[in-house]
Amino acid sequence: MHMKLAEMNRETLEAFQASCQQAYAAFQAANLKLDMSRGKPSPEQLDLTEGMLTCLADDDYRAADGLDCRNYGCLDGLPEAKTFFAPMLGVSPDELIVCGNSSLNIMYWTMSLAMTNGVLGSKPWGKYDKVKVLCPVPGYDRHFAVSEFLGMELVNVPMLADGPDMDMVERLVAEDETIKAIWCVPMYSNPGGVVYSDAVVKRFAALRPKAADFRIFWDNAYCVHHLTDNPPVQANLLEEAKKAGNEDICYLFASTSKITFPGSGVAMIAASEKNIQSLKKALSYATIGFDKLNQLRHLRFFGGKFENLTEHMKKHKALIAPKFEIVTHTLEKELGALGIANWSEPVGGYFISFNQKGCAKRIVQLCKEAGVVLTGAGASFPYGVDPEDENIRISPTFPTEAELQKAMDVFVCSAKLAAAEQALA
Amino acid sequence: MHMKLAEMNRETLEAFQASCQQAYAAFQAANLKLDMSRGKPSPEQLDLTEGMLTCLADDDYRAADGLDCRNYGCLDGLPEAKTFFAPMLGVSPDELIVCGNSSLNIMYWTMSLAMTNGVLGSKPWGKYDKVKVLCPVPGYDRHFAVSEFLGMELVNVPMLADGPDMDMVERLVAEDETIKAIWCVPMYSNPGGVVYSDAVVKRFAALRPKAADFRIFWDNAYCVHHLTDNPPVQANLLEEAKKAGNEDICYLFASTSKITFPGSGVAMIAASEKNIQSLKKALSYATIGFDKLNQLRHLRFFGGKFENLTEHMKKHKALIAPKFEIVTHTLEKELGALGIANWSEPVGGYFISFNQKGCAKRIVQLCKEAGVVLTGAGASFPYGVDPEDENIRISPTFPTEAELQKAMDVFVCSAKLAAAEQALA
Repeated sequence: MHMKLAEMNRETLEAFQASCQQAYAAFQAANLKLDMSRGKPSPEQLDLTEGMLTCLADDDYRAADGLDCRNYGCLDGLPEAKTFFAPMLGVSPDELIVCGNSSLNIMYWTMSLAMTNGVLGSKPWGKYDKVKVLCPVPGYDRHFAVSEFLGMELVNVPMLADGPDMDMVERLVAEDETIKAIWCVPMYSNPGGVVYSDAVVKRFAALRPKAADFRIFWDNAYCVHHLTDNPPVQANLLEEAKKAGNEDICYLFASTSKITFPGSGVAMIAASEKNIQSLKKALSYATIGFDKLNQLRHLRFFGGKFENLTEHMKKHKALIAPKFEIVTHTLEKELGALGIANWSEPVGGYFISFNQKGCAKRIVQLCKEAGVVLTGAGASFPYGVDPEDENIRISPTFPTEAELQKAMDVFVCSAKLAAAEQALA
Repeated sequence: MHMKLAEMNRETLEAFQASCQQAYAAFQAANLKLDMSRGKPSPEQLDLTEGMLTCLADDDYRAADGLDCRNYGCLDGLPEAKTFFAPMLGVSPDELIVCGNSSLNIMYWTMSLAMTNGVLGSKPWGKYDKVKVLCPVPGYDRHFAVSEFLGMELVNVPMLADGPDMDMVERLVAEDETIKAIWCVPMYSNPGGVVYSDAVVKRFAALRPKAADFRIFWDNAYCVHHLTDNPPVQANLLEEAKKAGNEDICYLFASTSKITFPGSGVAMIAASEKNIQSLKKALSYATIGFDKLNQLRHLRFFGGKFENLTEHMKKHKALIAPKFEIVTHTLEKELGALGIANWSEPVGGYFISFNQKGCAKRIVQLCKEAGVVLTGAGASFPYGVDPEDENIRISPTFPTEAELQKAMDVFVCSAKLAAAEQALA
């Protein structure tokens, strides 16, 4: 069938729907049970980190300076862990705090801290009647959820091909003092896979918000998670912000959750030295220190050399790039000619963003009823409301290639069926 | 010299002071460098946990139900970790969340959460103009600091021999709606070593505060840290609160920081099922999960049997009880007859509380100038203000016995010198 759905007459459409229904019934009969709901590494990816669980010996617990990593102390991370991880966010070791196992937790903490204590001595955000956060959409549901939970109002900003709509961002932050933050995943955005252009990064760096306590939450979760051999090189936000005399405007985050172990990785936050000093002071109330032995494990596993980490990422790529291809290939083959949908073809990150106007909920429901669990429709939008009911986040990494192919067969069948239903309604 | 200082005439006092000064000068000349500032286990204690760093193998990463502990998931702790740790706080596994490496962090989070989101749907504490917390004194400086940092007002409550002054606690919480919390270390209080009596525990359990969102922060940090073979058995707060139909009033905390590794232990929070459900919901915004591999390490190291943990604590006792004896023996021998000071003789925990009216700051200063760092005078009180300038927290666990003896020699000399200065002033 090489005809656009929009060009089909009613009779053709009905035949098309019937054939979709038949295929769908066969999938239902197969009793599939596949989960593509979250961006989760596969067991094979975790096996790449073989050796991490055993790389410390009973007498290997000292940092380079002799510090006993088993004991209390060293609030902001081992010095050599800072040196090791600094290149990941492109900052100097002094601009980095190496934390525990969860960057989401550090983001939550940083935003919660702004609510209780403000930033750099400002009035606590929680003391305002209304505080807003800008949410480029589609975006990461957990980011939006953190802000909503903490009582902030979520404001949609469209994501364009080179990053968030900066005309809108600049206008909004300049005129509305209640806007205190924006969430960004600058490289391989979740779910769109968008790589913010250098121009966008520089406009972020030069932002002059009405609220002096405005912060960019720059979640560089996928900064080393490339799907190509020649990954894009992106301008560094903190560096650009310094050039603009604006270095206190941003917090940068990353973690090894999708490099080593998602449950037992190492998270980090980077910022200007002034911000870092303030965060360290606040941190001294919140903990005595993070798990230094796990930082040491990471140092040992990678031999303390960052290039070993980037080499390690190539092994991840070898495992997951074929899965991304299964998704895009199946979408192109089955939906390409119909003209009903579009999707991203990311060169990094963990997701493929799929759009089919007015059909997202129905597709997710159809998939679910055929045993394929997807991220809920609307999840990529504040309050779970996708205004066009069009976006679905596809997470191809966890299933095996065979499972993924099956799941995508169900997906494209569901997409076609939903389109036919819509056209005939 | 077997004479009370108060009974000395001026001539005797001057001779006493001169001999103290001479001894003190000798200590200064010795260029000591000893740190007794924090309750920190010694390296020998950490060696007791030998095997923990190597007890997981590359193919040993699954929980009992097959869960891959390397990956995301399992927000509230491994089921078998809950079962294993539940006896520590005397609760059921359903009343427990097994967390990351820091109970202080979970206490901070719980209180910060009350500030941003209230408790069980109440108005966020941060939305009030004034919120107060009761602080039994002397107490743990980091508890008080958390509340002060979050903007709460700290209210002193005297610690008696069997726990906080409950008459005052009951009166204050009944009449003042702005009092939202109290900090407690119920067994081997920090620094006094006080074991709250069952009567006190029951009065806590039956509290009827004016503020419905009042919470008891029950930090059972030393619940298995005994210094005797027949440790006291204490009524369980959550159990008693249930009997009183008051089970939502408390949060219980503990950790393995002083059981296994201070930097890489496992922390936990227990509470009523209603509180736990609410905390789990809140936690789902703050993290995807804690480090399950480290929970697994603890399970493997202790063979999954809680009695192995309590046996393990006897090895700690064997190492630290002699240190407590050095402190109390030296104090008794050198200061006992003078009648200038009193001190605790705890049967558990990590501290000895020393009191000498009007002399705490001077003693800490004298010790420091002779190379012995103590916890700052006043640290055990809100805002660092000890109204009587009398209390010093002695932390005997970290130094070797020889170092500790030297440090205590400096300490008693400084105490005598301060007393003589005071008497002659």
